[in-house]
Amino acid sequence: MDDTEYHRRLGIGESAFDALEEHLEHRTYEGREYRHVPDYRYGVERGTALIGGEVVRGFPKIARTLVLETGVPNQFDDRIAVEEKLNGYNVRVARVEGDQLAFTRSGMVCPFTTRMIERLVDLEALFDEHPEAMVCGEMIGPENPYTAHDYPGVDSLAFRAFDWRDRRSGEPLDVEKRRERYERFGVSQTQLLGIYDVDETASELRPTVEELDAEGREGVVMQSLDGSTQLKYTTSASSRSDLAYAFSLPFDYGQEFMFRRLLREGFQTVEWDESDDVARGRARDLGEAILLSMRDAIETVDDGGAVGERHTVRAGPETVDVLLEHLREQGLRLEIEDDRREDGDRVVTFCKRVQSSNDRIRNYLEGYIVKE
Amino acid sequence: MDDTEYHRRLGIGESAFDALEEHLEHRTYEGREYRHVPDYRYGVERGTALIGGEVVRGFPKIARTLVLETGVPNQFDDRIAVEEKLNGYNVRVARVEGDQLAFTRSGMVCPFTTRMIERLVDLEALFDEHPEAMVCGEMIGPENPYTAHDYPGVDSLAFRAFDWRDRRSGEPLDVEKRRERYERFGVSQTQLLGIYDVDETASELRPTVEELDAEGREGVVMQSLDGSTQLKYTTSASSRSDLAYAFSLPFDYGQEFMFRRLLREGFQTVEWDESDDVARGRARDLGEAILLSMRDAIETVDDGGAVGERHTVRAGPETVDVLLEHLREQGLRLEIEDDRREDGDRVVTFCKRVQSSNDRIRNYLEGYIVKE
Repeated sequence: MDDTEYHRRLGIGESAFDALEEHLEHRTYEGREYRHVPDYRYGVERGTALIGGEVVRGFPKIARTLVLETGVPNQFDDRIAVEEKLNGYNVRVARVEGDQLAFTRSGMVCPFTTRMIERLVDLEALFDEHPEAMVCGEMIGPENPYTAHDYPGVDSLAFRAFDWRDRRSGEPLDVEKRRERYERFGVSQTQLLGIYDVDETASELRPTVEELDAEGREGVVMQSLDGSTQLKYTTSASSRSDLAYAFSLPFDYGQEFMFRRLLREGFQTVEWDESDDVARGRARDLGEAILLSMRDAIETVDDGGAVGERHTVRAGPETVDVLLEHLREQGLRLEIEDDRREDGDRVVTFCKRVQSSNDRIRNYLEGYIVKE
Repeated sequence: MDDTEYHRRLGIGESAFDALEEHLEHRTYEGREYRHVPDYRYGVERGTALIGGEVVRGFPKIARTLVLETGVPNQFDDRIAVEEKLNGYNVRVARVEGDQLAFTRSGMVCPFTTRMIERLVDLEALFDEHPEAMVCGEMIGPENPYTAHDYPGVDSLAFRAFDWRDRRSGEPLDVEKRRERYERFGVSQTQLLGIYDVDETASELRPTVEELDAEGREGVVMQSLDGSTQLKYTTSASSRSDLAYAFSLPFDYGQEFMFRRLLREGFQTVEWDESDDVARGRARDLGEAILLSMRDAIETVDDGGAVGERHTVRAGPETVDVLLEHLREQGLRLEIEDDRREDGDRVVTFCKRVQSSNDRIRNYLEGYIVKE
């Protein structure tokens, strides 16, 4: 199809589409050419894919507040549905030209996720009835090639739906209808934690967030009941875990990434009016997350090892093959650390090598002189 | 005098001087016009001043290592004099056209320091005998308009010499001669902690640095005996104190400033081969430095107050006047919080208001929605 059709489907003018088009990334998935919007700058959601004459909208960036008491009424003026925010990777599933494809946040078709979704959840009936649906959710669990995190009851990898949108317009279903539909089609969902009035949300959420925090969970997504407005808020456990991860690869994570998580801790301790003792405990946990993970990384390099992002995946042999190929095509250097068969699946542990942290830690260990 | 003379005195070509000249800052001190090099980029030391036909060289940036064991032999190949690094502000004193002037790191004449130096130390005989001398040292103590830090025996403000250079060429005296001369002229100096062979320096310095750390002191400067090569290394107490300060004004300090200090802690705990318990203690102290100071700042703004850099100075009334005027001329917003007379001196506590931290903390407290 020609691009005239795409600009109509995106709901933008021809000249806007021409401007966008220069910035589209071109890719191929199993012989099928497609393009996607790699960045937030171009007026159309990052991650939007143009494929087989169809538009698959990017998932919108969810706004965040550092302070619930004031941030919630700034964002909402009516009742709010609160669902758990899961720590995994965001995926959108759509049926395009008869094939069910899974798109990553940036709009690439992920060959691994495309295959795993079919194993994990049966979306045939859903797409038969709603061919325009974009099933949005999180891939969670410890055997995860992108973001591994333990959840009770998830031994390997699982899908949890958290949104349902029109794949072309990006319009969401309202929360109640969405939850009913996923229930009806037997699709596992993120938990609904409650529905509150704007004014009571901050105080109602305090114990909820504390409970999620105690269980090492990430946080909450608040939504207007029509699904159109969202707001996220995360736990201290999530900030600490992000910081520990960032400082385990200190030269590969942005300093802004680190700083923002420290800020969240500062505002949470003040909003929660923590006593000196409680705040000190929070501070100490924070310090441990930062320093002990950095210490491990420096020791690893000092002992002649290499730091990197280590992941384990469990899937059919062909699925593992296409995953490793997909990651390598993106320029990642992988080292296979373990590779075995279990019940017909291939279980592979690999390490994504990062260059900066290895090189720069080694430089400093060798007595690199800093001009500062 | 014309600029032909300046390029000769700087020891650079005419065209190099022409290139430099565009970047010089023009200033006046008590009717005397001068120019200075505000930045490190231009081939001539930052802080170099051109005044009254004379050159006053900038103080060189001192290199740093994060690891003593390897960094020391990278930088030196002979014996090393180790002196204490003091935590105050760097000042160079020179006699120009018969007047003794004090220059800040960036090459401005500081009217406050110029006056206080005369009160604190008598350099007349030194400059009579060595008119080309540039007396380099640190202004330390709690009553300090730039960097306040307590030192035993320093109630208000004191000067400690740590270098002696030719004001035009920037060439240093060797360490022994410098210490003898300052001794002879009755000028207080930074302490000499020892003279070591390259190979023994790292191990010899370990207990020294630990002792300085326990006393909350900043660190050490190592130097070749001829004074030409220098290297600094700082204590954990210094990193923590910098971090606490930075996070008390979290949006006014660079994230790189914060990150570099965290790195220093990581490399020190590994070089010192700390046990898990000791490393955990270091991590907790670090976390407290970060979070508790940020918490104080957020609480201050939440309670309707303002954060800023608070300083107290004690000096003659005219000296205080010129200081406040000098700071305001640099665009600082000062609030006088206390102003009293004691034994003929004026004792003023003022706060340098910082805009970003106040504004942004208030924004977040008011529920500013973050897109990230």
